[in-house]
Amino acid sequence: MTSGAFGSESVVAGALMAAEIAEQPDVLARLLADGSSASGDIAAALRAKAPRFVLFAARGTSDHAALYAKYLVEVKLGLPAGLASPSTLTAYGARPDLRDVLLVSVSQSGGSPDLVETTQRARECGAVTLAVTNAPESGLAQAAEFHLDVMAGPERAVAATKSYSAELMALWMLIDVVQGGDHRAADGVVEAAAQVVARRGEVAQFASRYRFVDRLIVTARGYSYPTAREAALKLMETTYIAAHSFSGADLLHGPLAMIDSDHPVVAIVPDGVGATAMRPVLERLRERAADVAVFGGAESMALATTGMLLPTVPEELAPMVDIIAMQWLCLEMALARGINPDAPRGLSKVTQTW
Amino acid sequence: MTSGAFGSESVVAGALMAAEIAEQPDVLARLLADGSSASGDIAAALRAKAPRFVLFAARGTSDHAALYAKYLVEVKLGLPAGLASPSTLTAYGARPDLRDVLLVSVSQSGGSPDLVETTQRARECGAVTLAVTNAPESGLAQAAEFHLDVMAGPERAVAATKSYSAELMALWMLIDVVQGGDHRAADGVVEAAAQVVARRGEVAQFASRYRFVDRLIVTARGYSYPTAREAALKLMETTYIAAHSFSGADLLHGPLAMIDSDHPVVAIVPDGVGATAMRPVLERLRERAADVAVFGGAESMALATTGMLLPTVPEELAPMVDIIAMQWLCLEMALARGINPDAPRGLSKVTQTW
Repeated sequence: MTSGAFGSESVVAGALMAAEIAEQPDVLARLLADGSSASGDIAAALRAKAPRFVLFAARGTSDHAALYAKYLVEVKLGLPAGLASPSTLTAYGARPDLRDVLLVSVSQSGGSPDLVETTQRARECGAVTLAVTNAPESGLAQAAEFHLDVMAGPERAVAATKSYSAELMALWMLIDVVQGGDHRAADGVVEAAAQVVARRGEVAQFASRYRFVDRLIVTARGYSYPTAREAALKLMETTYIAAHSFSGADLLHGPLAMIDSDHPVVAIVPDGVGATAMRPVLERLRERAADVAVFGGAESMALATTGMLLPTVPEELAPMVDIIAMQWLCLEMALARGINPDAPRGLSKVTQTW
Repeated sequence: MTSGAFGSESVVAGALMAAEIAEQPDVLARLLADGSSASGDIAAALRAKAPRFVLFAARGTSDHAALYAKYLVEVKLGLPAGLASPSTLTAYGARPDLRDVLLVSVSQSGGSPDLVETTQRARECGAVTLAVTNAPESGLAQAAEFHLDVMAGPERAVAATKSYSAELMALWMLIDVVQGGDHRAADGVVEAAAQVVARRGEVAQFASRYRFVDRLIVTARGYSYPTAREAALKLMETTYIAAHSFSGADLLHGPLAMIDSDHPVVAIVPDGVGATAMRPVLERLRERAADVAVFGGAESMALATTGMLLPTVPEELAPMVDIIAMQWLCLEMALARGINPDAPRGLSKVTQTW
């Protein structure tokens, strides 16, 4: 029933979401091929401005792309970075001194009024402003001094998928070129993404295993923490289960008490520095007899109850690959529960918040 | 059974937590009386350093105090601020340029190795460092250039309560005096806190109403968003239910789909700017027939299913008062479920994370 979903669009439940999940290798390939000169131009302009501090403003799925970029900025560019609280600039009327600050607003639609206002206010306060969107004509793209197009093409499913991986790649490319890279580190990403796209049936087995859970915890550390956050948000949107995400470190501060053998944990652990930092977390979960499914690398699989080995790419690029397995999981869990993930209750494509 | 809990300590379930909840008016009064000169000294030193950006590093409950202080720094001091991701400095070895940056580490125990290391690394990278702890002899207090003692006294319950409100007050006092205040704005806080301490029985009725829920959403905006975060964490720790927190704006991006009339929402909405920003959120929840309990001011009560009016203090100080109602809710919900909140499974008082 689910495997014939591609192609016919409004009829089959989840067909829109499935088509856009499957499109991601092409989206990433296009961005790598055609997005290079735009990111080069913006990188040159940003280098000239020499910001000393980076703030990100975003909501929902795009907030997770912003969090990913925050790690890149701190680790690769050596600049302190933070996530802005839009309400301080909008509702509370704060007028901070933002000279030497780069404000990066991330939004697939570019349509959220509070992000447009945050960008305008930040610009008035002296920030260099960059909008990263999938909508070059949007209010947000117009409000910022610079605009980076993530070139994902029109996204029709309510649950954002390809616009998310495109945001990750666009932000990675920009930071890579600021750092003097030529994007060659991303050579294997498109192929790895295609491999995960092809493994929908394998992911469906996990959806079957989780058919009757009403809550689930997703955990990760470092570059993969945004993947955990995005997976949990997408699970809430598409399956309505109470999905939580925690960094491995925060999980040990309190939420651990929630976990017993009946409350499953999904850990996103590609090999690398994050996996080393996750080892004591996986060990503590094992002590508590938790049911842990690891999606990631071989290093962590020995500590898992079950899991799925994902293709190996450099750790900082794994989020673009690993999220695809999580998107399939959301889609298959929704379908297994009789929910059409293309029509989640209470949601529409552009969320207006003030 | 629960009302006789004070005094006798290890015998009655929740007695430690109850005693420390009830101690908070005294803790806040002591800090206002005796903490003034210390915050004045540190404020003078920080003013001389003239930081341009503020980063906070914290975990668990203290992370919510840090988030509260981030709002204060942005709105009242006009400085951009962010929450640090400790793993970038520790696991990933980032060495960012932290000149002109103030790093504030918040931890009740001052014992978390990753916060100590983050503080040391930040200092090596040029940051001015301030530790805010309840443990002047701790590794964190020693590692930072400045130390602010929250003076909460020994905290013995695993679930932090008085150390949290003391962190909020200590951070507020510091920022108030940096801004030239004399703490007089906080005049009514001790009395308001005492009023909420006295209303344990009233809160217990909500615990009864939620006796059989297995998930619950807590929401708020602005200064009260940290209260929602802290309430959700404490619910997870003490009652094991799947408690989520969302800023009102983020709730409308996806998580709204999770909510129906069987999944209760608690909204923390003291009157003020945050309440105005929460109005459209409460209206959307009403459209979805959600069961919403408002804890806060009269402005929002008309949009609620049920609720509890809390004493009025200036909006930025409400978090120290409102959290007490949430702490009673956690304690009473734990007891109603036969859980001893003084001995949550899997947790100990100092969480070691690396």
